[in-house]
Amino acid sequence: MPLVPEAVERLAAEFGRLPGIGPKTAQRLTFFCLRAPADVPDRLASALSGLHTAVRPCTRCFFIAEGELCAVCSDARRDASLLCVVEEPLDVLAVERSGEFHGLYHVLGGALSPMDGIGPAALRIRELGERVSSGDVQEVVIATDPDVEGEATAYYLGERLAGNGLTVSRLAHGLPAGADLEYADELTVARAFTGRRAL
Amino acid sequence: MPLVPEAVERLAAEFGRLPGIGPKTAQRLTFFCLRAPADVPDRLASALSGLHTAVRPCTRCFFIAEGELCAVCSDARRDASLLCVVEEPLDVLAVERSGEFHGLYHVLGGALSPMDGIGPAALRIRELGERVSSGDVQEVVIATDPDVEGEATAYYLGERLAGNGLTVSRLAHGLPAGADLEYADELTVARAFTGRRAL
Repeated sequence: MPLVPEAVERLAAEFGRLPGIGPKTAQRLTFFCLRAPADVPDRLASALSGLHTAVRPCTRCFFIAEGELCAVCSDARRDASLLCVVEEPLDVLAVERSGEFHGLYHVLGGALSPMDGIGPAALRIRELGERVSSGDVQEVVIATDPDVEGEATAYYLGERLAGNGLTVSRLAHGLPAGADLEYADELTVARAFTGRRAL
Repeated sequence: MPLVPEAVERLAAEFGRLPGIGPKTAQRLTFFCLRAPADVPDRLASALSGLHTAVRPCTRCFFIAEGELCAVCSDARRDASLLCVVEEPLDVLAVERSGEFHGLYHVLGGALSPMDGIGPAALRIRELGERVSSGDVQEVVIATDPDVEGEATAYYLGERLAGNGLTVSRLAHGLPAGADLEYADELTVARAFTGRRAL
C-alpha cells in the first residue's frame, strides 16, 4: 500500500502542474486542503470547473470576456482611435492599473519566438491588421514585454504597420519608478540614457 | 461592468485562500488556467472535490488514510513498540523519507500554543495516553518541531508520559546536514554543542 492515498497523490500532481508550484509546494497545498474544512477545496474546485464555460476571449481584442465583447471593448467611453498591443490578457490589467491609457486593446496571445516555433501566424497579428485597416485606429502603442521576444515582436509589428498612415509607438524604456540607479542593470541604464528627455 | 469577469475574480480569490499564495500569484495562476486547455483546471477541480470523500484521518494514529487505518498502521512489519509523535501528517512523510524509523506514528494535529488558545484538549494527547497505556508501546520518540510551540509540547508530553515505564526521547537538535557552520544561527550552534557526541 502506498504511504499516501491515491487521491492525495493525484491532487499534489495536479497542483504541481501549475506554474511556479514545485513538488514541495504542491504537497504543502494538498495537506492544507486536507486539514482545511471541506468547503475550502470544494469552493476552489467549483471556481475552477466554472472557468472555461463562463469566460472566453473577447471576439474583438482577445482579452477575457463573459459575452461577445470584453468590458473594455463594450465601454463606449473608450477612445477607439487608440490601440494598445499587448502579449497576454494579464498585461491589460497592468496597463489599466496605470490609469494612463483610455483606448482599446489588442491581445496577441504571446510574442514571436522562432526558437519555440511561434511565428506571426501563431499570434493574432492578422486580426490586428484587419482592425487597423478598418479605419478607426489612428495610433498603435506597442506594449509587448521589454525582452528579446517582445522586442522582436515590436520590431516586426512596427515594420508591418508602417505605411498605413498610422502613428506607431512603443512604450518607453528606462528606470522603473522607485528603483535604485546603483542596482539597475546596464541595459536598462543604457536605454534610460538613449531615451533621456529635456527637463 | 468590472474589467474582469466575475468567474475570474472568484477563482483568483479562491487561489488566494491557499497558504503562501498572495494576490499576484493568485492572479497569475488564474490566468494560467484561462490560457491552458480546459482539462487542466478541470482535472485540478476533480482532484480537489474528491479529496474529502476519499481521505480521512487514520482512526489509530490520525495520519491520512483511505479506510479505517493508514498505510503505516496496517503494515504488520512495523514495530508497534515504537511510537513517533509528530505535529502534522506532513511530518510523517518527512520521517518516512529519512528511512530511519520503523515504528508507528501518532499525529497530534498541532502543537500547544496558549497564545492561540491551543491547549492539550485541542490536540490528540488523550488518544496518545490511551495508546501508550494499552501496553505495546515501549519507546516514544517526540518529533515535534524545534520551535517554541514544539518544544513546549515536547516538554509537556515528556512530563505527562513519565512514570509509565516508557523510554521517552526527543529528536536530536544540531546542525542540519550540508549546512555551513558560518551561517548557522546561535541557538542551533549552542544546541549542537550541548548535544555533542564522542567520535
